[in-house]
Amino acid sequence: MADISTTLPLSRSSVLSAHELIKAHIYRTPVLTNTTLSTLASTPQSPDDLQGTRFEGRTPARPKMRLWFKCENLQRVGAFKVRGAFHALGRLTMEEGWAEGGGKERGVVTHSSGNHAQALALAARESCVRAHIVMPTVSVPQKVAATRGYGAAVYFSGSTSVEREAVADRVISETGARLVPPYDHPDIMLGQGTMGIELQEQVAELKARTDPYASAGTAGLDAIVAPCGGGGMLSGVALSAEGTGVRVFGAEPSFQGADDGKRGFESGRRVEAVSSLTLADGLRTPVGEWPWKVIYERRLVSGMYSVTEEEIKKAMRLVLERMKVVVKPSACVGLAVALFDEDFRAMVEREGGDTGWDLGVVFSGGNVGVDAIGSLFAE
Amino acid sequence: MADISTTLPLSRSSVLSAHELIKAHIYRTPVLTNTTLSTLASTPQSPDDLQGTRFEGRTPARPKMRLWFKCENLQRVGAFKVRGAFHALGRLTMEEGWAEGGGKERGVVTHSSGNHAQALALAARESCVRAHIVMPTVSVPQKVAATRGYGAAVYFSGSTSVEREAVADRVISETGARLVPPYDHPDIMLGQGTMGIELQEQVAELKARTDPYASAGTAGLDAIVAPCGGGGMLSGVALSAEGTGVRVFGAEPSFQGADDGKRGFESGRRVEAVSSLTLADGLRTPVGEWPWKVIYERRLVSGMYSVTEEEIKKAMRLVLERMKVVVKPSACVGLAVALFDEDFRAMVEREGGDTGWDLGVVFSGGNVGVDAIGSLFAE
Repeated sequence: MADISTTLPLSRSSVLSAHELIKAHIYRTPVLTNTTLSTLASTPQSPDDLQGTRFEGRTPARPKMRLWFKCENLQRVGAFKVRGAFHALGRLTMEEGWAEGGGKERGVVTHSSGNHAQALALAARESCVRAHIVMPTVSVPQKVAATRGYGAAVYFSGSTSVEREAVADRVISETGARLVPPYDHPDIMLGQGTMGIELQEQVAELKARTDPYASAGTAGLDAIVAPCGGGGMLSGVALSAEGTGVRVFGAEPSFQGADDGKRGFESGRRVEAVSSLTLADGLRTPVGEWPWKVIYERRLVSGMYSVTEEEIKKAMRLVLERMKVVVKPSACVGLAVALFDEDFRAMVEREGGDTGWDLGVVFSGGNVGVDAIGSLFAE
Repeated sequence: MADISTTLPLSRSSVLSAHELIKAHIYRTPVLTNTTLSTLASTPQSPDDLQGTRFEGRTPARPKMRLWFKCENLQRVGAFKVRGAFHALGRLTMEEGWAEGGGKERGVVTHSSGNHAQALALAARESCVRAHIVMPTVSVPQKVAATRGYGAAVYFSGSTSVEREAVADRVISETGARLVPPYDHPDIMLGQGTMGIELQEQVAELKARTDPYASAGTAGLDAIVAPCGGGGMLSGVALSAEGTGVRVFGAEPSFQGADDGKRGFESGRRVEAVSSLTLADGLRTPVGEWPWKVIYERRLVSGMYSVTEEEIKKAMRLVLERMKVVVKPSACVGLAVALFDEDFRAMVEREGGDTGWDLGVVFSGGNVGVDAIGSLFAE
């Protein structure tokens, strides 16, 4: 990672700069709409639907929502993570003295079994920088092969964070590589936030195309709901919306305490450890220190909502069967909030009124195998 | 169906007229590319891959292909069938005396448990025409509900074609409804063919955008490969390409004789009955009489290829996992031909040479449940 003293301030204009830096390397992923899902979101749940849920006995809300899906499942390597990785690499190569000090040969290192590993390996290769990736010995062979396929050197470790960090430390001492963490760094946050810029632009473009008489000054979106794991992406999206009037909300799984962001938001203190096996496996980590500053301390996120495993699965089924795009469970928490969380829905009814809201919904990634889909939905 | 004497001649210009008639009612579905799949198609299979297949012992071909996927899985009702249905309705409402004779109230009828049922119901509703749909008693409740959801009257019958036709005949005698068959009629063929027009236009547009110096006269595509069941869509696509230099190929499952089109092509005689339980369930029907005239007698299809159940599943897994769009098994036979059929691949190597081919691949539909995906790919 570039030295922290060289990072840009955490602001919308820094996200715009990040976008300039990385946009040639990433896809401007499509923003899709879907009549069935917007209609469903705008239809009150029945009292029966609420039976046995945390909302039992409540009068179902009657919100109106037009949903705009930002499809980062169609991003390179199948997830938004490439944005942060390309930005981190881009900033690193701009650091004074880094190239002269043999930075490219020393390379970068991270420990990850998931999308961040492949994203960093890809970004490093396209920047002609060596990549060292520490993966747990138990990683699925395809992921190891994919990471090596991007030209990275793979090192194996145990599965605990202590074991992974020990191997990463050894790599650093042997090679002089720079550590690129998956979310807890301003350069990563600014990189992920570029997705929020595109989403705002694309919705404005799409609305202008369907309604050329819409006043040009109208913001396209009323709000964005995005998944929150370590919070790198949520905080980046919040920065991308700062000062625009677009509100940003975070979505988490509630299973086994994975709703650490929500709990932290309510108690006023960041939750530092999470141990959850939620099926939304990209969201098992606690919110990092840097993201927390943006999400909570600067109040750039307007609220956190959490959904159950069943709600995540119901949302995922709808996306696969009705939208016909492939998303992983973690990617569906935002849609699940819009469809099933009565707190959220009552707020949209209250604030959006008869007009309702244009709501951006982030699909964060699509890396899920057909075997996993099969076992998720087996009877 | 409009009286056969009123149908347009089976030609490319009639397909263009059909497109004018229906284009406000259908989606211009996206054409997607995918680097991974084009690379895979352009990589020779290994001799090991061919072990145990019908190509065992052959030297793997070395074709080059750039694949362009026409995503009719993202079409209304999830399949290309709406094109034919809207065109059939459009032509019917233009028939002299039809409206005056109470045509709208008499309505239209078909027997189908699949996409054609929903497509006709939708097209009828949007044309303010009554729809009567005969469905087998064993139809899945969601499909019945979806068909009723489009405002159609549903009638139940036994599962054999004799039983279905008997109920349809009764509906016709009671209501005066016109029968709209799923594929064996010129109006249906011309309607489905509109997809081929769009595919040709979109590839030309996409190529011009990435290479503005490409000579304007260059056809975007060298060939199109499309699934063949009853042949309504394949024959329509073939008509859409007539005189353009774009060759059209048909793809079928080989399981239990579902490759009737290929066998007919080779023997010179249309195969009139098929009884196959191929997992590509949209392709279990024999090629109809009208499509056969275009496909075979007029030689507008350049060749027919067939693939195994395993090859269809492998192609489907790649589409779900790598492209991250949902397709049904029937939709994957064209891609399976491009990836796995050594006869086809050797031809592309021979004809395409070093430049290779720009190959349009039709994804015909995406209506497959997560449960079905699960059981397809269960160990």
